[in-house]
Amino acid sequence: MQIQGLAAKKSGAKLEPYNFSVSQPQDYECIIQVLACGICHSDIHIIDNDWGLSTYPVVAGHEVAGEIVEVGSQVKHLQKGDRVGVGWQRSSCLQCRDCLRGNENLCNQNQALILNGAGGFADYLAVDSRFAFPLPPEIDTKIAGPLLCGGITVYSGLRSAGMSSGQEIGIIGVGGLGHMAVQFASKLGNRVTVFTTSEDKAELASQLGADETVILKKGEDPTAPSRELDILLSTVPTSLNWAAYIEFLASDGTLAFVGVPDAPLTLPLFPLLLKRRRVMGSPIGGRAIMMEMLSVAAQHKIEPIVEVFPFEQANEAIQKVRDNKIRYRAVLTVS
Amino acid sequence: MQIQGLAAKKSGAKLEPYNFSVSQPQDYECIIQVLACGICHSDIHIIDNDWGLSTYPVVAGHEVAGEIVEVGSQVKHLQKGDRVGVGWQRSSCLQCRDCLRGNENLCNQNQALILNGAGGFADYLAVDSRFAFPLPPEIDTKIAGPLLCGGITVYSGLRSAGMSSGQEIGIIGVGGLGHMAVQFASKLGNRVTVFTTSEDKAELASQLGADETVILKKGEDPTAPSRELDILLSTVPTSLNWAAYIEFLASDGTLAFVGVPDAPLTLPLFPLLLKRRRVMGSPIGGRAIMMEMLSVAAQHKIEPIVEVFPFEQANEAIQKVRDNKIRYRAVLTVS
Repeated sequence: MQIQGLAAKKSGAKLEPYNFSVSQPQDYECIIQVLACGICHSDIHIIDNDWGLSTYPVVAGHEVAGEIVEVGSQVKHLQKGDRVGVGWQRSSCLQCRDCLRGNENLCNQNQALILNGAGGFADYLAVDSRFAFPLPPEIDTKIAGPLLCGGITVYSGLRSAGMSSGQEIGIIGVGGLGHMAVQFASKLGNRVTVFTTSEDKAELASQLGADETVILKKGEDPTAPSRELDILLSTVPTSLNWAAYIEFLASDGTLAFVGVPDAPLTLPLFPLLLKRRRVMGSPIGGRAIMMEMLSVAAQHKIEPIVEVFPFEQANEAIQKVRDNKIRYRAVLTVS
Repeated sequence: MQIQGLAAKKSGAKLEPYNFSVSQPQDYECIIQVLACGICHSDIHIIDNDWGLSTYPVVAGHEVAGEIVEVGSQVKHLQKGDRVGVGWQRSSCLQCRDCLRGNENLCNQNQALILNGAGGFADYLAVDSRFAFPLPPEIDTKIAGPLLCGGITVYSGLRSAGMSSGQEIGIIGVGGLGHMAVQFASKLGNRVTVFTTSEDKAELASQLGADETVILKKGEDPTAPSRELDILLSTVPTSLNWAAYIEFLASDGTLAFVGVPDAPLTLPLFPLLLKRRRVMGSPIGGRAIMMEMLSVAAQHKIEPIVEVFPFEQANEAIQKVRDNKIRYRAVLTVS
């Protein structure tokens, strides 16, 4: 089968048409007609080879929503016409302890969609059906993609940090990730405090369910929120004064990172020890929690705020992501 | 009532006799005739005012085993003649969320035995009975003290880090804390790996139940143990290359600190994030887990290895602790 993609042919290049072929789906494989695909900062990192892992041409796009057009012989849970989504992960070994526990995202052999093949900036996507997730009917095709990457990242991060309900949840940053984290935490019955440098974003966070906003100046430490936090989720890619934030945690509280700061963490031990606080990181999420997240998002109407561009304007959209001008996720759709 | 204690009258001083009086026990108070009292490095920190919190004269000693001689009118769970132990904590508010959850050790108003009154280097100890714990008959008076401080510290630390059974548990350091941690982890059905710079201590750890020993040179990084660890408990007061140790953790594994390194932690985020690993600290333990620890120690014959000195040789014993010549806990007893 012929696929018409949009590829970066070298580091930092603009996307240009790139055609390639894939064979008929075998066994567990499937082919998805792409209807929409989000643009994530990670796509740009891979287009730019920031992590030294890219092989060109790069067909990026890992927030895919579309429709099944073909399935391999072993695929039982999906059929032609089903609406599905695919996120960051393409495959895993499905046999190790992590996979057997439903933590395919932690598998040593996990493969990223766009590092180990072509992604969703294309008319069709060939992928292991076990990493294609049926989309509940309540979830619109054009907002599904950001849920499958940023959404699962914050949902799984919050759950791994122990989020249930009736808790005090802090969210650092109200961007692509943060504005979904506010919704998940709030709509599942928690009291939410956001930390942001932007008054506009504080206002939006309030509209999305935040109960308290702490607005700080860039480079300055935040003031303490009115209540101690059970969980504080950092969604930002910058290094903050973590020692200051740790003091905002209640006993047994957890500082969880889903954003990656640009420097190693420096943490004084006493504030951790005296209140038995924890620090952790969490990457995307496994298959079981992906299904749970989609179900929760459908039921509680949790929706990323998106700016929609036709695929033909992919380069313009990517430039806006690069310029940090998107609020809050850019999505390419078939026009 | 007159109490004959041994006090340091200024920072770093040798102990000398010091008599003082306490009033009849009111309400929940009790008076304990001291039969044995361990010597912990924290006693020396407070004798030396290393933490700037000491008020002289200091009557140290917070690993107390003895017999109830008097109780206040509200004391129901103890009576004259009962054998009890007292550890690091003298009191807490008993009303905050931490206290109500059984985490009196995390209470903002928790008081240390020897920072807020006289400790166990004395013939009698006046204390809140709610922080005096009945000793199971299987636990010998002269080994009870170290369980009540170092023992609860490692037991609560391991439990807070998620220790159950059938897990891979690593212990950094085989000293006063570590040699008890090895026993708790091993006798509760876990596979134990110790990290130590001493061949002698590795040998002892094996005798105490360790399944694997990693011997490293001071200042060098350890080699990887043969299996990934679910929990790695650091019992040492020194700064190690934590980034190297974190790599030894399995997915969802926890690096737990009960020893306080001499510098802030520096942690790269990716190894935490990619395997959803955690870092935490844990201080002593609350009342419920103290009772649990004593019960477990009694049932599984978990015993600190002690060197016993008569109270009259307190200064000699302290000097040996200062010189790091005790294996593994020093205990003063009534001769």
